[in-house]
Amino acid sequence: MTKNIKLNMSRRIRRTPYTSMVEKHGVSDFTVVNHMLLPKGFKNSVETDYWHLSKDVQIWDVSCQRQVQISGPDASKLVQKLTPRSIKKMETGKCFYIPILNEKAGMINDPVLLKLDDDMFWISIADSDILLWAKGFALGLDLNVNIEEPDVYPLAIQGPKSEELMTKVFGEDVKKIKFFNFRIMDFMGTKQVVARSGYSKQDGFEIYFKVHDSHFDSIEMGEKLWKIIWDAGQEFNISPGCPNLIDRIEGGLMSYGNDFTNENNPFECNLEKYCSPDVDHHFIGKEALKSVQKNGIIQKIRGIIFDGEACSGIGQPLPVLSDKNKKIGQITSGIYSPRIKNNIGLSMILRDFWEVGENVTVQMLDGKKRKGIITTLPFPE
Amino acid sequence: MTKNIKLNMSRRIRRTPYTSMVEKHGVSDFTVVNHMLLPKGFKNSVETDYWHLSKDVQIWDVSCQRQVQISGPDASKLVQKLTPRSIKKMETGKCFYIPILNEKAGMINDPVLLKLDDDMFWISIADSDILLWAKGFALGLDLNVNIEEPDVYPLAIQGPKSEELMTKVFGEDVKKIKFFNFRIMDFMGTKQVVARSGYSKQDGFEIYFKVHDSHFDSIEMGEKLWKIIWDAGQEFNISPGCPNLIDRIEGGLMSYGNDFTNENNPFECNLEKYCSPDVDHHFIGKEALKSVQKNGIIQKIRGIIFDGEACSGIGQPLPVLSDKNKKIGQITSGIYSPRIKNNIGLSMILRDFWEVGENVTVQMLDGKKRKGIITTLPFPE
Repeated sequence: MTKNIKLNMSRRIRRTPYTSMVEKHGVSDFTVVNHMLLPKGFKNSVETDYWHLSKDVQIWDVSCQRQVQISGPDASKLVQKLTPRSIKKMETGKCFYIPILNEKAGMINDPVLLKLDDDMFWISIADSDILLWAKGFALGLDLNVNIEEPDVYPLAIQGPKSEELMTKVFGEDVKKIKFFNFRIMDFMGTKQVVARSGYSKQDGFEIYFKVHDSHFDSIEMGEKLWKIIWDAGQEFNISPGCPNLIDRIEGGLMSYGNDFTNENNPFECNLEKYCSPDVDHHFIGKEALKSVQKNGIIQKIRGIIFDGEACSGIGQPLPVLSDKNKKIGQITSGIYSPRIKNNIGLSMILRDFWEVGENVTVQMLDGKKRKGIITTLPFPE
Repeated sequence: MTKNIKLNMSRRIRRTPYTSMVEKHGVSDFTVVNHMLLPKGFKNSVETDYWHLSKDVQIWDVSCQRQVQISGPDASKLVQKLTPRSIKKMETGKCFYIPILNEKAGMINDPVLLKLDDDMFWISIADSDILLWAKGFALGLDLNVNIEEPDVYPLAIQGPKSEELMTKVFGEDVKKIKFFNFRIMDFMGTKQVVARSGYSKQDGFEIYFKVHDSHFDSIEMGEKLWKIIWDAGQEFNISPGCPNLIDRIEGGLMSYGNDFTNENNPFECNLEKYCSPDVDHHFIGKEALKSVQKNGIIQKIRGIIFDGEACSGIGQPLPVLSDKNKKIGQITSGIYSPRIKNNIGLSMILRDFWEVGENVTVQMLDGKKRKGIITTLPFPE
């Protein structure tokens, strides 16, 4: 019903240095993340883009991954208070996936933390204003930090040919960048953070593009970067793209606001390994998280494979039912997987039903029922 | 160029209890505010809706005006720290328009504050996560408050016939509600906050619809409320609507993220009367605001009337130039006014050029130049 609704444009829904480029490439859909445009589709189908992403290389405007820059004498202290994951041994040049919790241990973001220096961090955020959260907390505590949103516009290069392409543009050192590490690389005389990371299960890189010199215009420089990569990518069959729903669900990559919200704790999101409730350091939500650890959880994110007509991507959650027709959870992201040759979904499922192999029923928006089965995540290869 | 871009739907872009109703009424455009859908257009043109709004009555889904509920022993203390406007004399039942500032006196929201009781407030927010700001700050200060986003879904009834319609549905007491006041009114045995307010220059009301009893479903109850008002509104020629760009700009009603951002202080936004930097109480941004007060501002929001072809609503800012072709500001919201019979815009203009009557040049997105003149706000009747 809401398939052909237009997005009303305004300054509040911020454009990026690459928006003109994605418009030229025929972007058909946007969504809004962190008050900024995120492309969600081009001329091809999600399935065509999926196969392309798994074979070649794509360029994605992910500028909406805004950076919350925390610097100053108390930077490290503040960052540690923001997450249950220990950053004690984190080295400069590393990327850490970190849960951020509220006082009730509810997830309020699941960003990637970059350590640029001992007193300088970037938090590359999902869709919530962590700038306000971190700043409000630091003001309340009267910490000696500086918190801002710098003009950084991440550009993702994703797919198996991304290393070759990135090497062509940035040089041989690209190959030395390990997964979830970054290096400072030169681009036209400017220093850029280049990480091996990205929101796909393919190999890939994220360029945290920043105009360091205010004499340069970020749109102009951003378009230059896009064009140089685009031209260099021709021999690798480069295509414009965006986070691909099939690839993301198959890979078990969660989306904040979709697959979990501030109503969910990190244990429900399978993020135990990023939580150290027993460590010495204090962090927001510590007491609540200890209580979760002690009492256990009542639901958890699982995969579901479900039958029937190919699902083209769900715009709202689908109820999951037990054989007694009781609601036992919901699918929060779902689509047809051409590899698995069935529909797949990420779902939050109640404890008594989360065992792998459990048979469930998925209720479509039109009320029709489909047979489903619980799986692990990521979906089996 | 971006006129026909679709909005990609997902759970993260939250639906409201009224979304199904606006879909039935043929909503054509949405935008996203506070991670929630806000309708931006139906079958008729903005101009047709504008004339209708000025004569009859409309029903608007403004659920995206999320409430940040602050309660507990330190509630009043916290609210006062969040704004430069004094709430010392604020009585229960009042609505206050309040700036919320960061530590640099930059605007981070311009919500309406409702005092429900001495220790219970709602902050009805524009598009930024004040829930995280308030909660982070309160945690840092270790205040004794409870902060949450309750399931409140504001529904606006706007237009000159709104009082008659609201009286028909809620009873004669509606007439006693003064502008920016609210009363608790009965709806099918539930207590609802009904304020005389709204994001238009017409008379109007906002029902802060809340399902108080968890036995009831908010979608079901919301649809009931919508239908009862819709049916009662037939004799008043009710129509589905949304904040109207022509009405809003004519009335000088600003939009956070569009007409100002966290780069702007409240003095630049003509909000001096809501700021008391000299009072005893501490608030975030006080020192910075005192400095703004002392040193003066370099730019300010003004109206602009500009010539040429009728402008159908701008998706991105238009540069404003001096007669020497120097950029002296930008139009941040603009559209053709059928009443003024010319294009009008809200703009941030540098000091040397902000005098009423100043001749300026407006540069359209295609590069074409139009003659403009600076006006006061709201635009003259």
